[in-house]
Amino acid sequence: MTGAHVSGPVAVIGTGLLGTSIGLGLRRLGVEVTLADPSPSAQAMARDVGAGRPVAPGDRPALVVVAAPPDVTADVVEAQLAAHPGAVVTDVASVKGHVLSVLEARGVDLARYVGSHPMAGRERSGPVAARSDLFVGRTWVVCPHPGADESALATVRDLAIDLGATPVEMPAEDQDRAVALVSHVPQVAASLVAARLAEGSDRSLALAGQGLRDVTRIAASQPGMWVQILAGNAPAVLDVLRPLAADLDAVIAALAALTEDAEAPGTRLTLAQAIASGNEGHARIPGKHGAAPTQYGLVTVLVDDKPGELARLINEVGQSGINLEDLRLEHSPGAPVGLAELAVLPSRTADLEHELLERGWRLEG
Amino acid sequence: MTGAHVSGPVAVIGTGLLGTSIGLGLRRLGVEVTLADPSPSAQAMARDVGAGRPVAPGDRPALVVVAAPPDVTADVVEAQLAAHPGAVVTDVASVKGHVLSVLEARGVDLARYVGSHPMAGRERSGPVAARSDLFVGRTWVVCPHPGADESALATVRDLAIDLGATPVEMPAEDQDRAVALVSHVPQVAASLVAARLAEGSDRSLALAGQGLRDVTRIAASQPGMWVQILAGNAPAVLDVLRPLAADLDAVIAALAALTEDAEAPGTRLTLAQAIASGNEGHARIPGKHGAAPTQYGLVTVLVDDKPGELARLINEVGQSGINLEDLRLEHSPGAPVGLAELAVLPSRTADLEHELLERGWRLEG
Repeated sequence: MTGAHVSGPVAVIGTGLLGTSIGLGLRRLGVEVTLADPSPSAQAMARDVGAGRPVAPGDRPALVVVAAPPDVTADVVEAQLAAHPGAVVTDVASVKGHVLSVLEARGVDLARYVGSHPMAGRERSGPVAARSDLFVGRTWVVCPHPGADESALATVRDLAIDLGATPVEMPAEDQDRAVALVSHVPQVAASLVAARLAEGSDRSLALAGQGLRDVTRIAASQPGMWVQILAGNAPAVLDVLRPLAADLDAVIAALAALTEDAEAPGTRLTLAQAIASGNEGHARIPGKHGAAPTQYGLVTVLVDDKPGELARLINEVGQSGINLEDLRLEHSPGAPVGLAELAVLPSRTADLEHELLERGWRLEG
Repeated sequence: MTGAHVSGPVAVIGTGLLGTSIGLGLRRLGVEVTLADPSPSAQAMARDVGAGRPVAPGDRPALVVVAAPPDVTADVVEAQLAAHPGAVVTDVASVKGHVLSVLEARGVDLARYVGSHPMAGRERSGPVAARSDLFVGRTWVVCPHPGADESALATVRDLAIDLGATPVEMPAEDQDRAVALVSHVPQVAASLVAARLAEGSDRSLALAGQGLRDVTRIAASQPGMWVQILAGNAPAVLDVLRPLAADLDAVIAALAALTEDAEAPGTRLTLAQAIASGNEGHARIPGKHGAAPTQYGLVTVLVDDKPGELARLINEVGQSGINLEDLRLEHSPGAPVGLAELAVLPSRTADLEHELLERGWRLEG
């Protein structure tokens, strides 16, 4: 007996960040985990960090988790289904439709296969970056298909739950469209905006504020991984990027017309529509708890940039008994103070302001 | 005598967010401030919040601050230079070259005029949203031009310093190119990405993570203001948007070729270059203190989503004597825990991890 819903042995194929993290999380629950990777070094490293033991002849896994690079995932899934006729097989590639369609086209019996996609990652990669809690609190998309056994689906759901994630079921095609919209296209946009900075002067970049930092944060992501993701989800990404490019062309045409004639008809309307459409789309992003976006009350506090000041602030908020829903820090280059934006339920905003003023904090507004 | 570097009276023309905030900040230093706005209601509101007194016949300001909408700024500057032959005149419009070139084209004597641009703002607008500390810790770009008196330049610098900002001198054309790159184009990109969300399903949007939230945060900005900003800086914005659109078209062409032929030559290189160029540009964004980007050590802590837990964490970091350089919270929909990413100097990372583990916190990694 273990503390897990899934039964072992679980075979992890591919001991990069995701595979090793899955191994670590399952080992913590007492599940037997076997490890395999084409790189002996990566496999040994995953063993050394405690993610499981090397695979051995005669191993008969109950569950196989394929955590291989996207471009070989279908091949590995097919091989594992054949090698282990009693096992459920899942994979964790971030694009799901491609894997499924390749396997279907080959006529593979997919009753024991259910693809999935844990919405987790980090800037670093490889087994050394792995963590047993990588998936805690994350969404784990599980993609049923018509030929899948209900028990296989349940096993993959259990895997997500065991690792602390929240399973969300969605057909592969829907998941691929969703991640194109909420992940792949934002990545492309952030990278393209950041790429323009390469040509800016140091003095220009010194004017960078929080807006630029937020828009381009994910532009620090790895090219190698993203080439596979974008290439694997090309049709869904194109369905979002093409209308985005058309909108961009309209903005450019309006700006170009304005350089010829500052009163060019329709130009200001085009610009206003671009920004207003962004307002509408932004308002659709769910809030912290996955419900409709909540308009939190915001209280902005000036915090001296010295040790312990932020601690003192948050501590005093804690003493007030008011639950902090979110917190954002804003810095300006060279500034002796920072701004801490505290988000609380709107009904508690006035209470929090009162508490903080009583305690001598300087508030904005 | 006041606690300010600038001498009053200071005439504020335009009592929106910026003008009223300037009045509040100067009044706090004891400087005499007069207020004028074409809207009697806005003017009265600014007076009521304590930003100054209504302008009166015979007032002879030493400094006039034009905080009017961008499209009337040049007219107001010209009128104020004529009305007050002893006064220095500045404006705070975010696009500077247009104002200067209009005034130069009209042959206005600009010895007493120096334009400026405080890098501050908020989502809300109008005199009620004003704050005396709106500019504290912000950059305030001051734009000298060849015909400006040195004393006028010094006065505008003093205004920025009095309001807690850091003055940065830059010719108008350079400032306009800089803000196109670090502010206006990121705004357009964020709005266009967010606009695509309007067509997404609720289930798709439920997969939104921190990346999407960051990329689109500024998409909540006001259309009316941004139309004037973009229209006023059209040439500089176009100089950045056009190559960005070309990069986007290249990405789209590569993805389209991949949908025809999964091995289409050159396509993966195009995608990799787009992401890698983003890496390079992102690395050029200055860090918190305006220096080269610092690679902080990151310690990620699991925090239960209940009142006081975050407070307890930050308090214990404060007790450790380790200075927090930055803090980011990450939530996932429906998760019972959040992730707090603590940034500290790399040399303190191990100490912080040790301290937190000692105190029973769960760390990632």
